[in-house]
Amino acid sequence: MRTARVFRLSMAHPGDLSELDELIVRGTIKASDVAAIIGKTEGNGGVNDFTRGYFTQTLMALLSKHLGKPAAQLIREIPCVLSGGTEGVMSPHYSVFCIPETDATPTGAARLAIGTAFSAPLAAENVGRRAHVESVAATVRQAIANAGIERLEDVHFVQVKCPCVTVARAAAAIAAGKTPLTNDPNKSMAFARAAGAFGVALGLGEIKAGDFTDASLLSDFAVQSPRASISSGVEVESNEVVVLGNSSHWAGDLRIAHRPMADALDIGAIVDVLADLGIAAAPQVSAADLTRISSILVKCEPDRRGNVRGHRHTMLDDTDINAQRHIRGAVAGLVAGVIGDGRIFVSGGAEHQGPDGGGLIAVIAAQSGGD
Amino acid sequence: MRTARVFRLSMAHPGDLSELDELIVRGTIKASDVAAIIGKTEGNGGVNDFTRGYFTQTLMALLSKHLGKPAAQLIREIPCVLSGGTEGVMSPHYSVFCIPETDATPTGAARLAIGTAFSAPLAAENVGRRAHVESVAATVRQAIANAGIERLEDVHFVQVKCPCVTVARAAAAIAAGKTPLTNDPNKSMAFARAAGAFGVALGLGEIKAGDFTDASLLSDFAVQSPRASISSGVEVESNEVVVLGNSSHWAGDLRIAHRPMADALDIGAIVDVLADLGIAAAPQVSAADLTRISSILVKCEPDRRGNVRGHRHTMLDDTDINAQRHIRGAVAGLVAGVIGDGRIFVSGGAEHQGPDGGGLIAVIAAQSGGD
Amino acid sequence: MRTARVFRLSMAHPGDLSELDELIVRGTIKASDVAAIIGKTEGNGGVNDFTRGYFTQTLMALLSKHLGKPAAQLIREIPCVLSGGTEGVMSPHYSVFCIPETDATPTGAARLAIGTAFSAPLAAENVGRRAHVESVAATVRQAIANAGIERLEDVHFVQVKCPCVTVARAAAAIAAGKTPLTNDPNKSMAFARAAGAFGVALGLGEIKAGDFTDASLLSDFAVQSPRASISSGVEVESNEVVVLGNSSHWAGDLRIAHRPMADALDIGAIVDVLADLGIAAAPQVSAADLTRISSILVKCEPDRRGNVRGHRHTMLDDTDINAQRHIRGAVAGLVAGVIGDGRIFVSGGAEHQGPDGGGLIAVIAAQSGGD
Amino acid sequence: MRTARVFRLSMAHPGDLSELDELIVRGTIKASDVAAIIGKTEGNGGVNDFTRGYFTQTLMALLSKHLGKPAAQLIREIPCVLSGGTEGVMSPHYSVFCIPETDATPTGAARLAIGTAFSAPLAAENVGRRAHVESVAATVRQAIANAGIERLEDVHFVQVKCPCVTVARAAAAIAAGKTPLTNDPNKSMAFARAAGAFGVALGLGEIKAGDFTDASLLSDFAVQSPRASISSGVEVESNEVVVLGNSSHWAGDLRIAHRPMADALDIGAIVDVLADLGIAAAPQVSAADLTRISSILVKCEPDRRGNVRGHRHTMLDDTDINAQRHIRGAVAGLVAGVIGDGRIFVSGGAEHQGPDGGGLIAVIAAQSGGD
Repeated sequence: MRTARVFRLSMAHPGDLSELDELIVRGTIKASDVAAIIGKTEGNGGVNDFTRGYFTQTLMALLSKHLGKPAAQLIREIPCVLSGGTEGVMSPHYSVFCIPETDATPTGAARLAIGTAFSAPLAAENVGRRAHVESVAATVRQAIANAGIERLEDVHFVQVKCPCVTVARAAAAIAAGKTPLTNDPNKSMAFARAAGAFGVALGLGEIKAGDFTDASLLSDFAVQSPRASISSGVEVESNEVVVLGNSSHWAGDLRIAHRPMADALDIGAIVDVLADLGIAAAPQVSAADLTRISSILVKCEPDRRGNVRGHRHTMLDDTDINAQRHIRGAVAGLVAGVIGDGRIFVSGGAEHQGPDGGGLIAVIAAQSGGD
Repeated sequence: MRTARVFRLSMAHPGDLSELDELIVRGTIKASDVAAIIGKTEGNGGVNDFTRGYFTQTLMALLSKHLGKPAAQLIREIPCVLSGGTEGVMSPHYSVFCIPETDATPTGAARLAIGTAFSAPLAAENVGRRAHVESVAATVRQAIANAGIERLEDVHFVQVKCPCVTVARAAAAIAAGKTPLTNDPNKSMAFARAAGAFGVALGLGEIKAGDFTDASLLSDFAVQSPRASISSGVEVESNEVVVLGNSSHWAGDLRIAHRPMADALDIGAIVDVLADLGIAAAPQVSAADLTRISSILVKCEPDRRGNVRGHRHTMLDDTDINAQRHIRGAVAGLVAGVIGDGRIFVSGGAEHQGPDGGGLIAVIAAQSGGD
Repeated sequence: MRTARVFRLSMAHPGDLSELDELIVRGTIKASDVAAIIGKTEGNGGVNDFTRGYFTQTLMALLSKHLGKPAAQLIREIPCVLSGGTEGVMSPHYSVFCIPETDATPTGAARLAIGTAFSAPLAAENVGRRAHVESVAATVRQAIANAGIERLEDVHFVQVKCPCVTVARAAAAIAAGKTPLTNDPNKSMAFARAAGAFGVALGLGEIKAGDFTDASLLSDFAVQSPRASISSGVEVESNEVVVLGNSSHWAGDLRIAHRPMADALDIGAIVDVLADLGIAAAPQVSAADLTRISSILVKCEPDRRGNVRGHRHTMLDDTDINAQRHIRGAVAGLVAGVIGDGRIFVSGGAEHQGPDGGGLIAVIAAQSGGD
Repeated sequence: MRTARVFRLSMAHPGDLSELDELIVRGTIKASDVAAIIGKTEGNGGVNDFTRGYFTQTLMALLSKHLGKPAAQLIREIPCVLSGGTEGVMSPHYSVFCIPETDATPTGAARLAIGTAFSAPLAAENVGRRAHVESVAATVRQAIANAGIERLEDVHFVQVKCPCVTVARAAAAIAAGKTPLTNDPNKSMAFARAAGAFGVALGLGEIKAGDFTDASLLSDFAVQSPRASISSGVEVESNEVVVLGNSSHWAGDLRIAHRPMADALDIGAIVDVLADLGIAAAPQVSAADLTRISSILVKCEPDRRGNVRGHRHTMLDDTDINAQRHIRGAVAGLVAGVIGDGRIFVSGGAEHQGPDGGGLIAVIAAQSGGD
């Protein structure tokens, strides 16, 4: 029987995987059990944030050493999703999702289930369009099947890493007679994130195929999934998906829950998602309960209308600090204050991922004691 | 009988005082009743933040127009304390503290009392030394007397604006045979803030004259006052003090309370200071109670030891974003989330102002309905 | 007979106009002779750069004091064009363009001539469209007439400040049944700058009315004027124009010359424009010739294709430093090195102002001795 | 007979060593001939710039693959000196210094000679003190011997990478009864750079052992070497030295020259150093001569007195952009404009490296045709 285990590890810098190395060397983690990594590195989170590439290169070299497989192959098998930017009280860290086979017997309780899947490479002209949405949706369903989750409502968090168009890919597509949506990588990334969110919503049955057109992406913000967490980058060519949910086919004592966040001040969502897992925050999680928490996953967005609850914010017009850095720092300050810990994953770029101007929060916690 | 009133107003940009102008024109505020201004402007909060000067120039021109007094005189009579930096969810705003005479009769209840005082100009060679501490302490006591607050424990927040040494002032002092502590304005500002905090602690009787030496400043962080909020700038030559407390000699229905914050995650302090004023945050202040709140005043500091509750933060080593901008954004995210409003004053540079690595929070709220 | 005089003055901060005040008090400058100001302030040069507003407010209050006219009127009569951002070796300064009447007699030599003009307020729906281009062109011709410059080739520099659309103006236009080009102020600013550049080109006869359509703006970069320097801002409602050229109807000993800059490495253009004025730079302007120089005016732009002379630059993908700050610092380093002085006006946002990926340089210098 | 060859290669991102890999695979470069790398990566150049570590990890893995030696050994044999920050027109690139044995016969002409050396690990309590200076001086002399350069005046550029104190190293030293100069890594880095510059000056005989005390470091700026280029970092434990000079014992057609730069506007130094190599810049290097240039190496510093040639600069007081980023962008703009190429190494932190407020420039060029 499969058991999901999550190890939240700290790093001294983006190339520091020593804690994972030590756990593998000591035998606590079996390298072949590593299914996915989700982490925060201390870059700026923008196009020129190379801390993600540095971490990934180091990770794959480490796993390659332990598994005797080429890093170039591992990178296509193990999703490594990193968000740059540890503004304010956030602490650089990474969660290692492992799936050891254990001889536990089913208890009937629904426990954390993990599934991953990779789509076929996506053609440049499809990025940010319906074909992209459908590719993501199919890959999400495949990851759900891989996780053995039977009911869609038991899925609580879907992390997708989407390819986007580069200048070179766009040029090649045009030369082949195709018409990419845009040849601007930045615009392409935003459309790719939107396609990823629509794909999750479609894959989870939150919307239907007829509910949207290509023009809905980055335009109709009523379409959103509170379980979608999307990143996009030039370094991937297919959609990579990690599905997290609960299933009675899994052993262990971890469970996951999620809540949409209405806006950047929605402390209620944080308290509620903890309550879903039997953890009180009045006003802060107790030291004992804190040891039960394995991962905090948050998406957020600076309100594009320029105010929060009627009061003007200055994030969108700041030439000195990128708006995503502003919002990550603010929301992380709130979440870390309720949790009492800075090792939280707070990621920006939340278009169509939770309510417009808000986002979502998912928490993984042990149902008894700490992990 | 004096009544303290606080008007929290928004600005469209740092030169926008139109809301105050309108209230004066309409007669809601009498220009001669304006005793002090405390506000947040949308600059970077550093040496090259000119939004404070822009706001101050505009404010003094406005009051000059209404009062028929020269701006150059008003600037020496009305403390205008601005903190630059509205990171994250903070909304640019300013609180106008007014003291109208009313014909109310004493009720015995302690209500918000406001006192201001200006010291004599401080010699450059005294900045950041015992003479500076003593000058602040004396000015604080003068402001307390001005406020008519009888017991020191009824003082809850002391805002001080301290002069620092400029290259020119240091050179003049040296030419006169004096020895300034430093001729580096940035170092001087930090020592001036420390002297201000020690001065508040001394003025409030929290420490005694024998408890410290010049060497204690910026060194012995066990010395601190949870009621001191200090800023320092080249634009002032004397210590300017605003004391806020409660007194039964004042009418109105506002009260103030304060709490030290142990660290950047101390949500308990926020909930407690609200409870001191009879306001619940479970987890957030209700819409009805929100209308009772007049001002939120917070000081904070990136932990100089490089971690928060045992987990590494990256604020101090970030070459891209100043550490004070990081911590203001994080703490403001937490406070605004509990309050449900981004119009909060969160200021950095909190050396000796509350616990090391933490800071303090003060709240002014009406005891019945809104203001 | 009119004489053009240019005073290049330094400031200690964006609200420091003390050098101008002193010159007026001493009688060197007659306040009523001030025709225009062009300056560099030390903000970030972006949407949230308030150093421009702070300087303008201080300037207009100063002139109002000396002239006895309301500041609100002066701001509609005297163009004050500021560019934020003194990256690298640039020194904050402003050039005051004055037009005293003198009893000089014509010598036949062409000397610096200054003309200003203001258009009627521009309707929001016209911003960034042909009507905008035509309004600028007409205002440019009016300013040329005002300067008494007879031949279009004698115009060397046209500074235009264009209105753009704000969210509020766009909403009002839509409510009135009009269709603004965009309601995004940032996009509107870029289109307004493009319209300004097309307007200058049209006004100077560099292009004809049939040479372009609305779609050419920000798209056909072959259309450009090497004499156009455009800024755009929410604070103006009409197009403000300052024309600088040479005319035998003017006295004095100043002359102006200009050259297009092919790219950010075009040192040849700098040397050539100096040579046009009889000044050698081999490799640097001599101390004696340096005193002859009154103003250096430069526009530049980070190459939007991502490389300079075949080598990748990183300006456009930097999340930490705005691309315009990068290019201003680099080009200013080059120009200041050739001139030997950091008091140069280097402004970004040079769409259609000089060659694509480059820009332009104009220099004003005395033809004998210094000014 | 040894021949020095220099390959200047571009990178698409800090982990991109594909151009070097291709040259090795094609046989143009023999991996065992690689003696040192000096490069510019596109980080922020500060403490949290991880592009240097990313590049180094990738480089060492690449050489390890080709040489069959562990990367951990190579990192102690091949100096890899990186400067973060490609502000403005700088293009990310790296120069690979190779020393193939060739069967050339001596011509008597002095040609580029390369020498490297590593000191023993430096004790933490010695960092930034005389023992550090002497260790660097000895290592410099060792590298000169390694290069076979006979006369000290034939040395033109000495690159040193110095260890600094980390919090951990300082703590260990204190526990062992030693007294480190400081336990602040940032201060330690500056003192380490100063010790490196003094060490180069001592090793080159520019100063004598009696000319300075510990107190001279970061204080007596009259002590400086126009041939010293120092970096400091937590990642090294010994002093790493690369000496570049000219020697008749070397074949090839490369030569190196250097000049001090008096300040950030010293275009004369750039023109002069090119002239030393027979290259004219009037005002720019010709396309033909440009192909002869192999490397441009520059050190610079924002003038700590706050002005350049009497005019105030704003680099030191900018809370948004680090002063080193400002000065690198400005000086690179000037150097690249004279050269006509953005692939130049411009590094900040030039304390005691060239004149105070200035720096130095070294150029390597072929004496006939291109390389």
